[in-house]
Amino acid sequence: MAWYQVKGNDADTVFSSRIRFARNLTGYRFDKGLSEQDAGAIIERIGTALGEDYVKTDMQLLSPTKTEALVEQHVISRDFAAKKGPHALYRNDNKSLSVMALEEDHIRLQCILPGLALQDAYRFACECDDRLDAALDIAYDEQLGYLTHCPTNLGTGMRASVMLFLPALRAAGMIASLSHQLSKLGLTMRGLYGEGSEPSGCLYQVSNQVTLGCSEEEILRKLEEAVRSIIENERRLRGSLSAEAADRRADRIHRAEGTLRHATMISSQEFFSLYTDLKLGIALGEITSITDEALNTLLISILPATLSEHTGDAPKNAAARDKQRAAFIKKALGVSEQ
Amino acid sequence: MAWYQVKGNDADTVFSSRIRFARNLTGYRFDKGLSEQDAGAIIERIGTALGEDYVKTDMQLLSPTKTEALVEQHVISRDFAAKKGPHALYRNDNKSLSVMALEEDHIRLQCILPGLALQDAYRFACECDDRLDAALDIAYDEQLGYLTHCPTNLGTGMRASVMLFLPALRAAGMIASLSHQLSKLGLTMRGLYGEGSEPSGCLYQVSNQVTLGCSEEEILRKLEEAVRSIIENERRLRGSLSAEAADRRADRIHRAEGTLRHATMISSQEFFSLYTDLKLGIALGEITSITDEALNTLLISILPATLSEHTGDAPKNAAARDKQRAAFIKKALGVSEQ
Repeated sequence: MAWYQVKGNDADTVFSSRIRFARNLTGYRFDKGLSEQDAGAIIERIGTALGEDYVKTDMQLLSPTKTEALVEQHVISRDFAAKKGPHALYRNDNKSLSVMALEEDHIRLQCILPGLALQDAYRFACECDDRLDAALDIAYDEQLGYLTHCPTNLGTGMRASVMLFLPALRAAGMIASLSHQLSKLGLTMRGLYGEGSEPSGCLYQVSNQVTLGCSEEEILRKLEEAVRSIIENERRLRGSLSAEAADRRADRIHRAEGTLRHATMISSQEFFSLYTDLKLGIALGEITSITDEALNTLLISILPATLSEHTGDAPKNAAARDKQRAAFIKKALGVSEQ
Repeated sequence: MAWYQVKGNDADTVFSSRIRFARNLTGYRFDKGLSEQDAGAIIERIGTALGEDYVKTDMQLLSPTKTEALVEQHVISRDFAAKKGPHALYRNDNKSLSVMALEEDHIRLQCILPGLALQDAYRFACECDDRLDAALDIAYDEQLGYLTHCPTNLGTGMRASVMLFLPALRAAGMIASLSHQLSKLGLTMRGLYGEGSEPSGCLYQVSNQVTLGCSEEEILRKLEEAVRSIIENERRLRGSLSAEAADRRADRIHRAEGTLRHATMISSQEFFSLYTDLKLGIALGEITSITDEALNTLLISILPATLSEHTGDAPKNAAARDKQRAAFIKKALGVSEQ
């Protein structure tokens, strides 16, 4: 079972928690001038260090569709997907832990878990990091901490992030001021697909901006504190609607369910909008026929490349894909075709 | 069972067929100067002539809601509903035959049947007319035919009409030219609620304009011929969509079903739009979970006054009525409330 098929803590407001470490090996160049031989050696050494719990994917042998699907699933970065030359991905069974070998850094290790679970994600990421540390000579400086390709990652080399579901704050027009407040705390807020992306499905990622000059524990504490405060605000706003506005919200939520269950063509953009209403509906107890996990699973499954992977078929145009997507959703929800 | 709960012929394109006769009694004034005593006498005499199969409703004793509901159900005219002084309605069991006593004319007799059934409606209307003719002295002139309050009804005193469902002709923008062609044949086309009303639910009424100088049989033949030609055009257009357009149409149809089954607030205006898509969906075989009769019954049941009558409750505002309407629709469709 994949991590997103499991219900997390505070699922009403938190989609996932993620810890990422950037690491590099001593004795190899940090930049793009790495020889093919050295690249192969690094990939091999990482695999050996991780052990047999981790399955290797040679990215050069992976089809464009499967590669794109990994981007959609937040497993790899777009840069990693586009990279030429040797690079590989290692993943554990439930895909909560993954290691990109030869992204911007030699090692990009991430742990992603459902709901608010920063401490657990941190613990699992550390266990994986320890395996690497035990077997490899990781570049570390007493003053600077972990050495990285880009100075913005120096120090802890850690990026901790939480994907939040904030429909009420968004509807209240409070996202911009929230983002501004967070930046003063050394935290950043952005859309579902990283920097500059439009927030889809009312999902917003909050992460630490600073990696240098503070401990991992401090970073986690500060992020979790901010996240808990955002969650409280979001919940308070959801509960503060007038009776009439609540009626209109309930109507919108149930219409979204009707569309999801009945439409025969659905674009991914429309799905994000339905997702917002349905996830809120589940949180409010308005929707009981779809679970939060099932909906989150759909959010990942219905993206073009992932959908093609699931159905084993790559439609020729957008309309055909929208038909395929609607049929896939119905099947996933157990709606019988007429 | 009411007439609209029965499936009619050509239900894919025809909602109902209607015959209306205008009649007056000799020995009484035709204009508004009728004394209260004469008015009462006319109402009584009509009732006696119709016999015990017909139930009388004294319109002066009817509540405004029930009166408005009869307008919504096309049983009485808006003028009849607004009229001061004595006036009464007589209806048979299945409500296919009704007689307005003291509308514009002393007698307005109508028969309405589901689907294309002009001949049957004419036959039933004639049977009723014969009862009246046998017992009453009906104003008739050898030259002019039946004498009526308004000269536009002179002659046969008959208005024959068919309520057509024409979504494809409308989508193709062909209604205006169709209306123009019909006028050259002495036929008129208008919206669901009579002259000048906006067509709702893609329902258009086609009726004879001329009552003088042609026989009832001629009027019926001409109207039926025109209607059959319109039906053919509508069906041909429905079948001539490209595969992609047909996909989009199917999607729209199924979304309408999703909305009807799931929304918790529905305005009557929105219902008309959903009705259009669903009725088309039933005709095309896309929708199998709702029957045409059930949908037609809803079309009549969800109007404000009729809805209040059904639910025994008159909501305070539009939002409350929209909630009541959605709940009523769900109940009628057998959707279980969550």
